[in-house]
Amino acid sequence: MMESVPRIAISMGDPGGIGPEIIVKALADPGLRTRARFRVFGSARALEEAAEASGVAPYWWNVAHDSTLVGTALAHRVLVLDYPELNAGAVGTRGGGTARTGRRGPTRASGAASFLWVEDALAECLRVARDERRCDALVTAPISKEAWSLAGRGQFPGHTELLATKVNAKRCGMLFTGPTLNVILATIHLPLMDVRNVLTIGRVFDAIDLGNEGLKSLGVARPRIAVCGLNPHAGENGLLGDEEARVIAPAIRVAQEQGIDARGPFPGDAVFVDAAAGRFDLVVAMYHDQGLIPAKLLDRGKTVNVTVGLPVVRTSPAHGTAFDIAGRNRASAESMTAAVETAIRMAGARQV
Amino acid sequence: MMESVPRIAISMGDPGGIGPEIIVKALADPGLRTRARFRVFGSARALEEAAEASGVAPYWWNVAHDSTLVGTALAHRVLVLDYPELNAGAVGTRGGGTARTGRRGPTRASGAASFLWVEDALAECLRVARDERRCDALVTAPISKEAWSLAGRGQFPGHTELLATKVNAKRCGMLFTGPTLNVILATIHLPLMDVRNVLTIGRVFDAIDLGNEGLKSLGVARPRIAVCGLNPHAGENGLLGDEEARVIAPAIRVAQEQGIDARGPFPGDAVFVDAAAGRFDLVVAMYHDQGLIPAKLLDRGKTVNVTVGLPVVRTSPAHGTAFDIAGRNRASAESMTAAVETAIRMAGARQV
Repeated sequence: MMESVPRIAISMGDPGGIGPEIIVKALADPGLRTRARFRVFGSARALEEAAEASGVAPYWWNVAHDSTLVGTALAHRVLVLDYPELNAGAVGTRGGGTARTGRRGPTRASGAASFLWVEDALAECLRVARDERRCDALVTAPISKEAWSLAGRGQFPGHTELLATKVNAKRCGMLFTGPTLNVILATIHLPLMDVRNVLTIGRVFDAIDLGNEGLKSLGVARPRIAVCGLNPHAGENGLLGDEEARVIAPAIRVAQEQGIDARGPFPGDAVFVDAAAGRFDLVVAMYHDQGLIPAKLLDRGKTVNVTVGLPVVRTSPAHGTAFDIAGRNRASAESMTAAVETAIRMAGARQV
Repeated sequence: MMESVPRIAISMGDPGGIGPEIIVKALADPGLRTRARFRVFGSARALEEAAEASGVAPYWWNVAHDSTLVGTALAHRVLVLDYPELNAGAVGTRGGGTARTGRRGPTRASGAASFLWVEDALAECLRVARDERRCDALVTAPISKEAWSLAGRGQFPGHTELLATKVNAKRCGMLFTGPTLNVILATIHLPLMDVRNVLTIGRVFDAIDLGNEGLKSLGVARPRIAVCGLNPHAGENGLLGDEEARVIAPAIRVAQEQGIDARGPFPGDAVFVDAAAGRFDLVVAMYHDQGLIPAKLLDRGKTVNVTVGLPVVRTSPAHGTAFDIAGRNRASAESMTAAVETAIRMAGARQV
């Protein structure tokens, strides 16, 4: 009989990045390990190398992901689902091409492997509740979009878009939560000048609505939401752009009619100061840098990325693969630890 | 014989905004008044009202800007050049329309008045050096772009563009300097989606070059400059936009060839963390919110706006008219004080 803690699936991310290192460091905390069971999808060899480079004593159990032994191994507190066919410490791929785990940069092989690990980790979260392989939340370590592109997965600019496609989500959003600031993005991974083509009333409303739901699932009963403008000074009453009047203000009105406490549009360079001072629980940013610059500045390594609008709980650290420092015991696991803690909290809330 | 301190011209900005209040509060510091002579272009009545509402005892001398008495009044430490023809406490305009000083919002009258005050204050800075009316630096309180537009001055989105036109500056830049961060903008007051039309190699190079010069005039011998990308993740090697490779990287190379220590393009959500940690002296941002969100978050009220590339020193507080709190003794003069101090420092450096 297994005790009642959530089961967390973790995908390793790009094996050449800092994913293995931050996973091995985050789960090295015995306190954290009492609060959930963990199943890591990735390269056991990469994890061992990261542990060795970081001076962490092994605390996990390995099994090949397709082994008949998986069932009996599930009782382990931390179980690594290994992919020996990807050529152990070196990462080979089905699609051809090979790369050493130690290679520090995006490769076709690392892209194919990290893509597969997300797919498999997600599949565990989609199992029926009574299945003992079923996981309650997904935590993803950073992948390289360039590697995914090299591996022929360029149609997915990131985890969020892949997950949304896999579960046929009609809409989903990228929420960043940290000790100081919560931010949700109305548009994510596209060239800035293409925001024009996708920013609609429906899109902005969805961001407000999903953010509202996300904050509730994080424990805020009635979130106070501030919505950014797109243009300098939020368009200065139409002098510096019309998206505020044409798109953003109507979306805010729709949200208000749905009973959501949303206000704006506010100038980007003012609203985050107000939110940081505690006057709002969430800021809806119109594009990537508008939301991520303040989130990363204020909460540094403590920001967690949460995908809202999916049937599964999914969190991740809010940083990239950091190829430049990978393998050198220089990565901080702070954001990964926060991502795991947030996943545990949200998985618990969903079970209740 | 006048002592050798710089003379600072201050334009009052929109009389319905917080301009009068922050001027009266900033110059109320006797220590600051020993370091320069001040000539304020604006409404004496608005200044009096702001002083009264803020509990500040008068310390200035008034004279009508076109009076024959101006010459003898120049000896005063703080001289207010008043515009009685704008109808004293009420602000009337040449172009028609009137509005009470107490009216809190942009009007045609407040736009015409604030425009004229900038023009006149600038004219004093352009006089020959031996002229006793000559001023050494210009500090501008916030104007309302909407009021300027109502007054038929909509061709100038802000001070920077007006000043550049008046002095026929081939190029100029908007630099923000604060205790933690220095930022210069490659594009300023235009709809975000129009950045595409103006972001050229020359434009980005000018921002780097002007920022380099600006930092030198602020005392940094060899500025270490970081240049932002435009797109999320600085375009992620071309996957999320091509402006980094097509425009920004070439501009950085040109700057490097000129001996400037410029690097990038870096992702916007990473570079400000590095700059705040002291690894760069200046960040070149591609558009308004990219630079102003971090500047205002990190340095709050202490950020000063400096126009670089003009033949005159010009600074201003880095905030707007704040009509909503005007007249209620709620405005902080911190940024105005910093703007005056920066103007004094730069005027001194230029005289040497």
